[in-house]
This record gives sequence, structure tokens and C-alpha cells, in this order.
Amino acid sequence: MKAIEPRELLELGACIILGNTYHLYLRPGTGLIERAGGLHRFAHWDSPILTDSGGYQVFSLSDLRGIHNDGVEFKSHLDGSLHNFTPEIVIDIQRALGSDIMMVLDECAPYPCAADYAQASNEMTLRWAERSKERFEATCPAYGVEQALFGIVQGSIFPALRERSARRLVEIGFDGYAIGGLSVGEPTEQMYAMVDVCAAILPQERPRYLMGVGTPENILESIERGVDMFDCVLPTRNARNAVVFTAHGRLNLRNAAHADDFSPVDPDCPCYGCRNFTRAYLRHLFKAGEILALQLATMHNLTFYLWLVRAARQAILEDRFAAWKSELLKQIRS
Amino acid sequence: MKAIEPRELLELGACIILGNTYHLYLRPGTGLIERAGGLHRFAHWDSPILTDSGGYQVFSLSDLRGIHNDGVEFKSHLDGSLHNFTPEIVIDIQRALGSDIMMVLDECAPYPCAADYAQASNEMTLRWAERSKERFEATCPAYGVEQALFGIVQGSIFPALRERSARRLVEIGFDGYAIGGLSVGEPTEQMYAMVDVCAAILPQERPRYLMGVGTPENILESIERGVDMFDCVLPTRNARNAVVFTAHGRLNLRNAAHADDFSPVDPDCPCYGCRNFTRAYLRHLFKAGEILALQLATMHNLTFYLWLVRAARQAILEDRFAAWKSELLKQIRS
Repeated sequence: MKAIEPRELLELGACIILGNTYHLYLRPGTGLIERAGGLHRFAHWDSPILTDSGGYQVFSLSDLRGIHNDGVEFKSHLDGSLHNFTPEIVIDIQRALGSDIMMVLDECAPYPCAADYAQASNEMTLRWAERSKERFEATCPAYGVEQALFGIVQGSIFPALRERSARRLVEIGFDGYAIGGLSVGEPTEQMYAMVDVCAAILPQERPRYLMGVGTPENILESIERGVDMFDCVLPTRNARNAVVFTAHGRLNLRNAAHADDFSPVDPDCPCYGCRNFTRAYLRHLFKAGEILALQLATMHNLTFYLWLVRAARQAILEDRFAAWKSELLKQIRS
Repeated sequence: MKAIEPRELLELGACIILGNTYHLYLRPGTGLIERAGGLHRFAHWDSPILTDSGGYQVFSLSDLRGIHNDGVEFKSHLDGSLHNFTPEIVIDIQRALGSDIMMVLDECAPYPCAADYAQASNEMTLRWAERSKERFEATCPAYGVEQALFGIVQGSIFPALRERSARRLVEIGFDGYAIGGLSVGEPTEQMYAMVDVCAAILPQERPRYLMGVGTPENILESIERGVDMFDCVLPTRNARNAVVFTAHGRLNLRNAAHADDFSPVDPDCPCYGCRNFTRAYLRHLFKAGEILALQLATMHNLTFYLWLVRAARQAILEDRFAAWKSELLKQIRS
């Protein structure tokens, strides 16, 4: 996690982090992490870790050399070296990392995407899912701790493909189900429509995980549609760009409006930054390029996001989610 | 302080920080800090703050336009704007900042430096010291909290000039005395010789402060010569460059030697990093450009430096400083 200490994450109540298989595989390398005793020991993080399949970074970050039925060939963005990810290799890497939740290799189809490309890609991803499950069942965790495997629904913005994908994955059977390939440029309403299609099929008793999403609004809308898990760089990346989230909307701390503002980012926020420092001081730290600015803003945004999902859970338990959500969104947008 | 939270500094036992008058004057500006209620409130730091005079940065960082008897004219390194620092202005700025220890404006003569230049510069610095004292006595703290004023001994590497400077400053009378203009390129032995000359004259019952020094070895040698206070970027700047200090010497955490080293930076160190993370992991964080690397290394180096001076104090109190020092230096050099 960038610009925050693991002990601080625990203090904020974060109970799971995400490790990027693509990055870890290339640097420091799976072998080193294995010798360290797995990713938990290497990074000294005792709580759960989810690892992605690396596929998304292969498609977005590496120099992609080719997609073939067996997997993907790519050149490292670090040194140009040639590598191959197959469904089996990606399971093996995640076994070696020892994450608690592993993800299957998939193709995240680009947006926009022709229907025939999306269909062919979806069928390939489903065959990969099947092979991933087979490899998963044929292998054991490297460190004696159980590992879960999640399938990933693809199908671009085509409801029929999403349905086909979700049904087939449920047939194969996974510990949880992710909805992938969204928040890639499509209109937000189309993203929600796809979540609706998937949520109607994916079993309620298994976690549903919307990958790479999103804004506070995206998260609340998706929770309403039945999503249980999210991952996103927004809170931490925005923090490093001086953008902080509050229940009254976003602020850009570099704005001149905050130069003489001696109030905290959010007077209701319990985070260390909001309890001790002003917007004027944070603005100064950002303008001066101080690392402390990144630390304080990261801590604040994570505090906000963790509050958001905890408050959502509480509202669901108390059967008042819809009213709470609409009230909060009104406030955020005002 | 770069890459460390104020609450962490307090946990490490740091009881004073230094603020750069030149930087704060230019950005965010003295006016903003006054409106915030002074530097303590602006930066939310309740323990003591020492501010330098800004002179050192004017000479080393700005586009210096001229030294005249009244002060220095310079262009900001940020936006090229023209500014003037006089002994009086610099006292006024530090009053507005509300630091606990203020420093007089001086010229830190370059090294090497001709004897006649050094002498003229020294006389000017002494006149500035006199004017600083006068301004100090004619003004009050802006926030009702007492502020101390330290004089600064200059004189390059010329013992007679150092003596003249120290004697004259004691005549003027300050709350504490700094030894400036050292660690600017001269041989270390000459630095120690100048410290000896100054320490023989500066009153024992007042703090003696060696500015901009230094390595663990420099600090121990200077403590032995009677110095009480130091300031230096070495522990924090080195940390950000992956160089960490231990009682067994320095390590560069980027070195391949640490790639597979699953021991802590220093097994005897009580810092958060050493208790939880390995050299292999820190090396990975540095190689991957992670901010957490800067945070952990900064915390470690400050822990080491604070341990060093506390251990030195304890050894002095127990009348075993010389033996302790020579043992430790042997270990550090080995």
C-alpha cells in the first residue's frame, strides 16, 4: 500500500489488502517471495491478502506480444524480458505467493469492443476459468494455509455474454465471483446494468466482487445491486494528487481556496490528519512537495472509504440502506 | 520533517525540530504562518522549534544578488522574486514564526576562503550579531511565549578569527552559542580543531550548538569537545537514498547483497521497521520506488541518531564517555 504503514492500515480497520501478481512476479520475483515464506511473511501482513491474476496489468501495462488459447505472451515493462502467463502458471504463482484469495486469469476486453470479439474473448476466458479450477484442485497451498479461488465474469457490455459467463462460472464452481471488465470507459449506467445482470445469477451466499471500482457513488450503487467487495486505486491515488474525499464531496487541496483555511479537511473525520492539521497546512505540504502530504491524505481517504462501506453494512443490517444512500449521495453531490 | 509523521517523531523521543526560515518565509510565507497563530500551531508541533536565520539557504540556494553591510539581497529560488534579509528583518520573521530558539543572521564564509575575506566577513557577522541582539531586545514574542536567541561563531578555519568571534559574541551575550561555517568542505581534523577553539571560550552553562553536523563519528567527537546540540539532514536524507545507519556501520539497502537477506536492518534496533521488516523487503520497496521505503528508513535512522545522543548523555553522566565512544567507533568502522 502506497504511503501508509501496515500498522496504520490495521488501525484504520482495513482487513484485507490486494497484491498485484504481475508486479510481484516481475519484481522482486516469485522465487524471492517463496524463500521469504510467502507474501504474508515477506510484507509482514498477517491479515488476508487477495492477489489478482496479473492479467489486467499484462493487458494494460506490459508490451503485449500475443493472446493465444493457451495464455498470454508479454514483455516486462521493467526490462523488456519475455514472459508467458497461462491459467495454470498464474495459479502456480499465486500458490507460491500464498494469498488467501486467488483470481483466475481472464481477458479484460477493451471498451468499446465488437460483439464477435467480446464473444470469442468470453469463451476463451471461460475455458481459462475451467483450466484454472482444474489446476487449483490439483495443487496445494505452499504454506499449509487454505487458499480460495474466485472466477471472473466477463462479457463486455453485452447482457447475453454476461449471463452466459456468470452461469458457466457457477457451473464450474468457485469460492467467490468477481465481475470484471467494467469501469473501463463505458457509461456508468451500462456498468450498473451489467452488475444487475450478473448479480441476478451469481449465488447470494458467495462473495461478489466488483473489480477496479470506484467512486463513493459507484460503490453505493453497486452495493445496492448486491456487490460485497471492491478494489480500487481511487482513494490512494487521488490522495497522492491532493484530492480528498468527504461526505460533502471532494476537495483538491492544492486549490488557492484552501490557502487560508484553518479548518480540517473534514471536521467529522476521526483520522490523524483531520484531528491535527488544517487544510492550509496540508495545502502547504502539497505545494512544497512534502511526503507527509501524501501520508496524511492517503490516511484520510482510506478512513473515508472504510467508513463508507462500514456505514453501508450497518445501514443494510438496520434495513435502512436505500434512505441512507440517497441522503448521503445528495450530500456528496451538493 | 520529511517522510515521518509528527506523532511518530514524538514516539521516537524527538523533543525539538528545526524550521528553515528561508523556506518558510518564501512559502507559505510569514503572513500565513502568523495568521495560523505561529509555526507551532501551523505545523501542530507543541514541542520546541529552532529556526535558523535563513542565511545559509540565501547563500547556498537562492540567486544571491549582493552582500552589503546592511544585509543580503537575493532572488527566490522558487519564482525569482527579489528579497532582502537584514539582521532586523530576520529577527522579525522569527518572532512571527514564534520559534523557541531563534538564530542571528550571519555569513557562512565559503571554504576555502582567504584570510582577509574571512576577517572582513567575520567582522560584518559580529556587527550583525550586535544588531540582532538589539532588535531582539526591542521586540516581543508574537504569541506570548518566551523566545531565545543564539549567536553564531564564524571565522572559517582561522583560530584567531574563531577566538575573536566567540569572545565578542559572549560579550554581546546570547542564550546559547552556535558554531557555524563548519562541515563545508574543510578536512574533518580542521573542523574538530575549530570546535576546540570555540569550546574553550563559550560558556559551559549555555548550550553550544554545532550547525549542520554530522556523521555519528562527527557527533561523538564533537560531544567530547563540549558540543551539546546538532542539526543535520544526514539521517533523513540518507534514509531517502536507502542508506541506513547502525552501530555496525552503514548499509545501502539497494545493494544486491541484501536481496535475499531476511534479517532486519539492525536486530538490536527497537524501531517499527526493524521489528517487522527484513532487509530483503526494504530493498524491494526501494527498488520498486515505494514511499513506504522512505518512511521506514527515515524512522530507523532517526531512531539510531536519537539512541546515539541519548547513549552519549548516559555515558557522560556515568563518567565513561571516552571508553564508550572509542568502543562504539571501533564497531562502527569495522
